[in-house]
Amino acid sequence: MEWISKALEKVRKRKPLVQNITNFVVMNTTANALLAIGASPVMAHARDELEDMLRIADSLVVNIGTPDEHWIASMEKAVKIASEMKKPIILDPVGAGATKLRTETALKLLEIGDITILRGNFDEIAALLGEHGKTRGVDSTTYEKDKAKELAFIAAKEFNTVVAVTGPVDYVSDGREVYAIYNGHEMLGRVTGTGCMVTAITGAFAAVEEPLRAAVSALVVFGIAAEKAYEEAKYPGSFHVKLYDWLYRINGELINKMERVRKVEP
Amino acid sequence: MEWISKALEKVRKRKPLVQNITNFVVMNTTANALLAIGASPVMAHARDELEDMLRIADSLVVNIGTPDEHWIASMEKAVKIASEMKKPIILDPVGAGATKLRTETALKLLEIGDITILRGNFDEIAALLGEHGKTRGVDSTTYEKDKAKELAFIAAKEFNTVVAVTGPVDYVSDGREVYAIYNGHEMLGRVTGTGCMVTAITGAFAAVEEPLRAAVSALVVFGIAAEKAYEEAKYPGSFHVKLYDWLYRINGELINKMERVRKVEP
Amino acid sequence: MEWISKALEKVRKRKPLVQNITNFVVMNTTANALLAIGASPVMAHARDELEDMLRIADSLVVNIGTPDEHWIASMEKAVKIASEMKKPIILDPVGAGATKLRTETALKLLEIGDITILRGNFDEIAALLGEHGKTRGVDSTTYEKDKAKELAFIAAKEFNTVVAVTGPVDYVSDGREVYAIYNGHEMLGRVTGTGCMVTAITGAFAAVEEPLRAAVSALVVFGIAAEKAYEEAKYPGSFHVKLYDWLYRINGELINKMERVRKVEP
Repeated sequence: MEWISKALEKVRKRKPLVQNITNFVVMNTTANALLAIGASPVMAHARDELEDMLRIADSLVVNIGTPDEHWIASMEKAVKIASEMKKPIILDPVGAGATKLRTETALKLLEIGDITILRGNFDEIAALLGEHGKTRGVDSTTYEKDKAKELAFIAAKEFNTVVAVTGPVDYVSDGREVYAIYNGHEMLGRVTGTGCMVTAITGAFAAVEEPLRAAVSALVVFGIAAEKAYEEAKYPGSFHVKLYDWLYRINGELINKMERVRKVEP
Repeated sequence: MEWISKALEKVRKRKPLVQNITNFVVMNTTANALLAIGASPVMAHARDELEDMLRIADSLVVNIGTPDEHWIASMEKAVKIASEMKKPIILDPVGAGATKLRTETALKLLEIGDITILRGNFDEIAALLGEHGKTRGVDSTTYEKDKAKELAFIAAKEFNTVVAVTGPVDYVSDGREVYAIYNGHEMLGRVTGTGCMVTAITGAFAAVEEPLRAAVSALVVFGIAAEKAYEEAKYPGSFHVKLYDWLYRINGELINKMERVRKVEP
Repeated sequence: MEWISKALEKVRKRKPLVQNITNFVVMNTTANALLAIGASPVMAHARDELEDMLRIADSLVVNIGTPDEHWIASMEKAVKIASEMKKPIILDPVGAGATKLRTETALKLLEIGDITILRGNFDEIAALLGEHGKTRGVDSTTYEKDKAKELAFIAAKEFNTVVAVTGPVDYVSDGREVYAIYNGHEMLGRVTGTGCMVTAITGAFAAVEEPLRAAVSALVVFGIAAEKAYEEAKYPGSFHVKLYDWLYRINGELINKMERVRKVEP
């Protein structure tokens, strides 16, 4: 779809400043993913500087992957400020369902702020909807294709936001339309934080494009980069390196050739 | 030895969920090492979610590499809970001997919980035994082969746990038997957190195998992966990348061909 | 200049222990950069162990990239102790100017301690001098060559320290002399934390060489490593990997062939 490569062009041209409150595991990798795609990352979590930083930021990414009381307080404050400032907010509820703290933290952030895009795997989003009791860490293990589509659609309506449920096939919905994205590669499961990377990149797209298209574009671009990376590297260490290379190299021509997105019935 | 490749098979089949409370420097690299070997990593440190997370985890890895009062309190709580739940606990006393805080933290964790495997370099384990006053950061500088063997053996008896003293030759003991592992490569010393990686991987093996064999298997597998990585890459950046590749690629055939383990007299 | 390769030789020979209080994004990458160049990194931030760690350290690197009240308190304590111990202290005021917290934190550290070298981009150093109101995150966007030279010179006099203003051309001054360094590569801007890496490496050089030469040497060595890395890898993931390789491979011969340093009029 034409608008995906257009969205990437906009990211590259405007170099949005993406403010991240993310987890310790992926701070480096998400910053590198944002730089590779052409955006400008910043990481700040001190409550005393959130307002200053959000004023110059183009979007906010909140990722609850290594939560504790101090960081949760920062996330809450950041989500409130960004909501007031009408900045796009992307939420990654890492491990929701695995522990009560994570489920509750994600639900509270959804409640107190105006979350633009919610990006999680099947178990995480399902846990937030209360349909599902347990997730196994941050892996997506109980994915089922038809259920994933339904989940994205229902969660989008329930939380009044765009929801991206990622897995073997990714589904993105705003509660009216649903897109299915077939791009990606299973080797992504062997590198930590690839879900967090796509969430961060979604923050870059959300700064330059409306939410539904931003979420779809980020998943397509990231998925194609992963496919190209795997063409060059079959093992996780090398694949990880090539993933950044292809986030940098990907362009409109490649997107138009390789995108596998379809608008599907809800 | 036959059981090493068997242990690796078990890790790959069961994909144990390894809960880590580790240091900021290596969060990403240890998660990637666990994923590459076939395990499933999770990182959680909030006191409010430790019980939930440990309930679904198959083992706990505690690494004191960047300690402070908040994280130490989490480590203590996690070790207590995991002990009650009878989950395998692996302790990496990074920098013990370099500062009083680290030595005392490690000793306290050994005291309050049922540590399954203690993995450190010569100076760290020696400091814990009180034989040694100073270590130079996290490097292993004062290693001596015969002393290392003795140290593993004595520390295992003293702390009533399996002890792995790593260095040019690694020694693992449960206070009765001692294994010497000659696998590994000195280029590991030029990449940060490779000791922490092997500790994390030990957590994966301890989830599927009894402690002595788990510790030996982890060191052999990691050591061979390092040797293979060096065959392909002679410099630290590239070597680091290939290390993940080989943690993913290593198999029983390679282990049987390359393992250099011997059971030695205490 | 002869003394640059000499300084590198000293780093490799003495393997200085560089104590870092740095940001979450770059803990792993700065440790790896230090190891690659031949130094020995340690990361410690607990107020209870700072004195122990600084006693054995050869220099202190403080980087305010992800500040909060707890970490700032540690930075202040570390700077005070290291000043008393007369250890070289390198300060990287990441994001000064972007938020009031960062500007004030950096200024306070300059005030309470004896900072040996201050290393930042144009906007950061300018913000500290109060000439400049806003920086855009951690990017250096408003760089101007002549102004950068002047800035380094004035800031060095103002703060009574060596100042390195990095950008397309780097300027280093002690308030009397000014050096211009033309080494480096723009691909460094596509990898997170490369500024932090050169600050960390400056800590290694400052442990073995007087401040002005230490700062120049670090920038030249890092810049040449980047140029060599780019010869081998044109995309950011692969470039990042090769950067460590070349920090390890760089030697006196390469430095003498490739250095582009000039002493310039203030």
